Amino acid sequence: MTARVNRQWRLVARPVSNFKDSDFEWREEPVLAIGEGQILVRNLYLSLDPTNRIWATEADSYLPPVPLGDVMRGGGLGVVEESQNANFPVGTNVSGMIGWQDYLLSDGTGLSALPNMPEVPLTAYLGLFSHIGLTAYFGLLDVGQPKAGETLVVSGAAGATGSLVGQIGKIKGCRVIGIAGSDDKCKWLVDDLGYDAAVNYKTENVRESLKKYCPNGIDVYFENVGGEILDAVLTLINNKARIALCGLISQYNATEPVPGPYNFANLISKRARVEGFIVLDYMSRAQECFADLGKWLMEGKLKYRVDEVEGLENTITAINKLFTGGNSGKLVVKIA
Amino acid sequence: MTARVNRQWRLVARPVSNFKDSDFEWREEPVLAIGEGQILVRNLYLSLDPTNRIWATEADSYLPPVPLGDVMRGGGLGVVEESQNANFPVGTNVSGMIGWQDYLLSDGTGLSALPNMPEVPLTAYLGLFSHIGLTAYFGLLDVGQPKAGETLVVSGAAGATGSLVGQIGKIKGCRVIGIAGSDDKCKWLVDDLGYDAAVNYKTENVRESLKKYCPNGIDVYFENVGGEILDAVLTLINNKARIALCGLISQYNATEPVPGPYNFANLISKRARVEGFIVLDYMSRAQECFADLGKWLMEGKLKYRVDEVEGLENTITAINKLFTGGNSGKLVVKIA
Repeated sequence: MTARVNRQWRLVARPVSNFKDSDFEWREEPVLAIGEGQILVRNLYLSLDPTNRIWATEADSYLPPVPLGDVMRGGGLGVVEESQNANFPVGTNVSGMIGWQDYLLSDGTGLSALPNMPEVPLTAYLGLFSHIGLTAYFGLLDVGQPKAGETLVVSGAAGATGSLVGQIGKIKGCRVIGIAGSDDKCKWLVDDLGYDAAVNYKTENVRESLKKYCPNGIDVYFENVGGEILDAVLTLINNKARIALCGLISQYNATEPVPGPYNFANLISKRARVEGFIVLDYMSRAQECFADLGKWLMEGKLKYRVDEVEGLENTITAINKLFTGGNSGKLVVKIA
Repeated sequence: MTARVNRQWRLVARPVSNFKDSDFEWREEPVLAIGEGQILVRNLYLSLDPTNRIWATEADSYLPPVPLGDVMRGGGLGVVEESQNANFPVGTNVSGMIGWQDYLLSDGTGLSALPNMPEVPLTAYLGLFSHIGLTAYFGLLDVGQPKAGETLVVSGAAGATGSLVGQIGKIKGCRVIGIAGSDDKCKWLVDDLGYDAAVNYKTENVRESLKKYCPNGIDVYFENVGGEILDAVLTLINNKARIALCGLISQYNATEPVPGPYNFANLISKRARVEGFIVLDYMSRAQECFADLGKWLMEGKLKYRVDEVEGLENTITAINKLFTGGNSGKLVVKIA
């Protein structure tokens, strides 16, 4: 048997602005032998997410920074290729923090075995039954608390999370307006996902378009972006509006301190709430979420899209699509 | 009987930065005769509040702007001097929007008759059993939701509202840290009001002092100020922290757009909540609040302080004390 090689991207520098090749080192190491209680996972799909950029910075956030020199942290899917752990027999598909590499040697901590349902494509465990589905579902329902008849606005609406948020909003009876970065994305939101309207923030005056599409004001805002878009929304919120703060992707690559919204004081006059959340807090409620998502998927009420890039070697080029708006739906790298 | 004169401050210009004399016109008009259903109120005390500055701007906020040329809007207390309204007999003390003037002609709308309790000084209806008490009580308990053992930080802590907030926090079992603008104020907070510690933001590094006084982080922040103080607090909040957004006095006089907090993204990593509120929404629950405040006052657990300025003619000089930190406790003008 030929020695197997574990190709890896190790983080070797703290990124400034976009990720660059020089922030990483490509390494090829022999795959290590497993010990007692361990498993060897052949990684299949790597999930690329805006939060990866946060993990690469020096600052402590909701997770500690990735130490320089380590394999870059990343979620994804793999299949157990060798096992000395009864919880993960050979052939089991698993999800969890697999890292930017071909193989993961693990004692199983933090990994979840996927259900054995051959009719569900593996990518559904990336784009829907995953941290993405949990983020959209609990961020909207638990934090945003939309009521039927209310107006929901979603930024980053054609992204993995945003595209689900708007559809769940429609299922819950809201008027839903999306904000995205191209006419194609906007068309997809309205024609395929059932959004009531969509705003192309690169070509339209966001405030004017939102004003037109939200004649009764904005009750719930699901925030993935920040910056000027948040400020535009803040001028149109209703009393008791709720802003579910999921991400602020417009500022993750900033090299200078980024100010908060200029219309921050509107939170007072509108008695409004901004609340941040982290999907990790909802892991214990995953079944509740996945049951609903699965039902809606089968009823044809929910669609998800996976933007698949081939090859671990293309990871760095791929991830910057998140920050330029180059992807549509869940961005993943197919490793094997 | 000599014709009575109604001296008034009318708003004639939108203020830029601090209020200036030239923003107002002093007018002396004869007191009008009351008609059917009306009352004539002799104004006794005018309440000066940071929100007056908001009302004077052109922008629509939670109340419409005061129209140029009108008597300036202001809350306060008076006594019914003439009455053709059975709900308000002559001699009744009332509170409500009396305006910056000697006399108010009214049909009673928006006015409340004060209870006839001679043992309660009139100023208690300004500094405690008033919008101030309601703001402190519901802002802290309903929006901030402190739990015993948690750490509460209050900015504008020596102000009318802030000084009550910290004391209510102590009653509820919190560790309470105040932020104020002089050593005297800080001493008052700790020695007289029972705050655990106080930070003089004019002479101390707020973040370093808060870090020292809040070894277990900050769970609840009652915000009256905004700006750098809010940013310092945001670096020290715990998971699931709550920020009750009462006011942002540091920016009310700004002549340029003011950015929101630079550490806005910390709301995500800390799963924290910022929520604005307006006291008007709690008017229907006033009895619940005043019952508790009255009980705590009689038990000696709650103190309030009134900063009394003599003479309607001194109103404009007086109100700017709010923005320079010149007052301590509830700022009022004694009219008669």
